[in-house]
Amino acid sequence: MFKSAVHNLEESSKEQVQEFLNSFDTVLSDCDGVLWINNNAIPGSADVINYFRKLGKRVFYVTNNSTKVRADFALKAQELGFIAEPEEILSTAYLVAHYLKGIGFKKKVYLIGSNGVGDELKAVGIRHIGIGPDQVKADFKSMTQSDLDPEVGAVVVGFDEHVSYPKFMKAASYLANDECLFVATNTDERFPKSSTIIVPGTGTLVRAVETCSERKALVLGKPNDYVRKFLESFGLDPARTLMIGDRCNTDIEFGVRCGFQTLLVLTGVTSTKDLEKIRSEQKEPLPDVVLPKLGNLLNLVS
Amino acid sequence: MFKSAVHNLEESSKEQVQEFLNSFDTVLSDCDGVLWINNNAIPGSADVINYFRKLGKRVFYVTNNSTKVRADFALKAQELGFIAEPEEILSTAYLVAHYLKGIGFKKKVYLIGSNGVGDELKAVGIRHIGIGPDQVKADFKSMTQSDLDPEVGAVVVGFDEHVSYPKFMKAASYLANDECLFVATNTDERFPKSSTIIVPGTGTLVRAVETCSERKALVLGKPNDYVRKFLESFGLDPARTLMIGDRCNTDIEFGVRCGFQTLLVLTGVTSTKDLEKIRSEQKEPLPDVVLPKLGNLLNLVS
Repeated sequence: MFKSAVHNLEESSKEQVQEFLNSFDTVLSDCDGVLWINNNAIPGSADVINYFRKLGKRVFYVTNNSTKVRADFALKAQELGFIAEPEEILSTAYLVAHYLKGIGFKKKVYLIGSNGVGDELKAVGIRHIGIGPDQVKADFKSMTQSDLDPEVGAVVVGFDEHVSYPKFMKAASYLANDECLFVATNTDERFPKSSTIIVPGTGTLVRAVETCSERKALVLGKPNDYVRKFLESFGLDPARTLMIGDRCNTDIEFGVRCGFQTLLVLTGVTSTKDLEKIRSEQKEPLPDVVLPKLGNLLNLVS
Repeated sequence: MFKSAVHNLEESSKEQVQEFLNSFDTVLSDCDGVLWINNNAIPGSADVINYFRKLGKRVFYVTNNSTKVRADFALKAQELGFIAEPEEILSTAYLVAHYLKGIGFKKKVYLIGSNGVGDELKAVGIRHIGIGPDQVKADFKSMTQSDLDPEVGAVVVGFDEHVSYPKFMKAASYLANDECLFVATNTDERFPKSSTIIVPGTGTLVRAVETCSERKALVLGKPNDYVRKFLESFGLDPARTLMIGDRCNTDIEFGVRCGFQTLLVLTGVTSTKDLEKIRSEQKEPLPDVVLPKLGNLLNLVS
C-alpha cells in the first residue's frame, strides 16, 4: 500500500541535498514538534525556515492547534525567531471559520473550544456560545430543551481544557438534530511528549462527542486535505510543495493525500522506534525523507 | 451472519407463550430501559419479574450501570416494586471489584468514576483515588510525575459526571506504563432516552481515555461475557437462561455471545425503527423474541 523505504537526508551527498532543496518552492510546516515544543523553540528550526525564505520559497505554517488566532500565532513564531505573517498561518481555528463562512453558515455555533476558534469565528461574523467552564450540577440529568439555544446550527469541537460532562450533554443534544453541522478542528490523540505526562489532544474530545452523538465529525485539520483546497487559490503546485511534520498519521498522511513531498523530523511525536514500526506494519504512510531534527539541514548544505 | 427474523411474542398463541415460559429457569434482566427509566418504574415490569420468581425461576439483575453498590441497587429495585436481593445484582461496579480481586490485584486504582465503583473496590480491600471534581488549573500543562501516585497499578473508567481534562491527563499518563491495567465498566454510548436531551454514557469517557492513552480497555460489562463466567459458579445452564434487554448492541449481543435465549423490549434505547434497521443491516444480532414492553407478557398468559 505505502512505500517501504525512507531516505535519510543525512546519508545524502551535498549534491543530493541541493537537488532536494531545488525540488520545491512552497514549504508547509507543522509547528509543535517541528519548530517548537510548547513555548521553547527547537534549536536550529528557525534558521532553516528563514533560510527557505531567503531561497525565495513561500512558507506556510500549517497547524492543527486551535487555541490561538492567526495574529497571535504569528507573534509566537516571531518571538521564537521565525519570520512569519498572520496570513501565512493556516491554523484549524482559522480553517473552521473560513469553512463555515464559505458555506454561508448564518446560525450560531456551540463551541467546545477556546478563544482561538471563538475569535476567528467572530472575525467572520459568526456567533458562538460555549467557551469556558461549564461545571456539572447535582441535578444535571434534569437538563431540558430550554437549556439549549434554539439558534445553534453547528457544534464545533477544538481543544478545550474546560471540557466537562455538561458540554458533552449539550453537544450530543444539539447533534440529535440531523441538520446541526458537526465540525472538528483535528483528531490528534496527544500533544508531542515533553515529559512522562501525557497531554491529551483534541482527538480525545472529538472521539467522546462522536460517541455520545453517534455521529462522525467533519475534520478540517490534517490529515484532511481541506488545507490543499484552501491553498489552490494561491496557485499551489502540489508536486513542488514540501510538507514538514513530526507525525506520520497527521502531517505525513496529509502530505501524501495532497500529493506533496514529505519530510519527517524526529523531534516530536514520531520516534525512530515508531518509524520502524510504521515501516513494518504499513498502516500509516511513510515520509519521502527523514531528518533527526529540522535544524540539521543547514549543516548538510554549508 | 445473524438471524434475520424476530418472533413477536404478542403474535403467539397462549400455548406458545406457555412453551416460551417453560423454556428457561434463569432470567437475567437489564434494568434501565427494561424495568425502569431513571427513577420511574416502567408499568408492569415488576409484575412480570415477580411472576418469574413465583414460577420458581432464578432472577439476576445485570446492569452496566456503575454508579451504585449492590445494596443500593437492590434497595432501588425494591422501592420500585421488584423483589430483589443484593447478591442478585450483577452491576459493573461489583464486577470490576470482583475481577481485580480475582487476579490478586494489590496496588491502587486511579478511578474515573463514582462511589459505586469506589465502595465496591473498598469492600474487597482495594484502594482507589480519583473520585470527585478535579478541575483544570491555569498551569495544567506543567503537571509533572510528582502529581501522579506511584502506587497506582490500574486505571478504571466508569460513569463520572465530574470527568475533566486533568482526569484524562492523569489516566493517560498512568497508562503510559504498559504494566498499568486498563479496565472499563462498559461502553454504552448513551443512557436510554427520556427526553430530547442526550445523556452520554460511560462509553463516551472510555473512548476518550482510549484515544489519549492509545490503548484499549478491558470492558467487563455487557456485551462482554464476563458475567457468564461469573455465573458459571452458580451452575448456570446457558440454554435454559433468558436475557432480557432494551439494546441490541449490549444486552442482546451479550445474550447471543453467552448462548442464552434473548428477549428485546422496546421501552428503552432500541426502537421499532432501529430494529428494522438492524434487521436489514445485519451488523448487530437480533433477539429471539420481541415485546413492546415487558409488562405485556402477563396479558399473554392470563
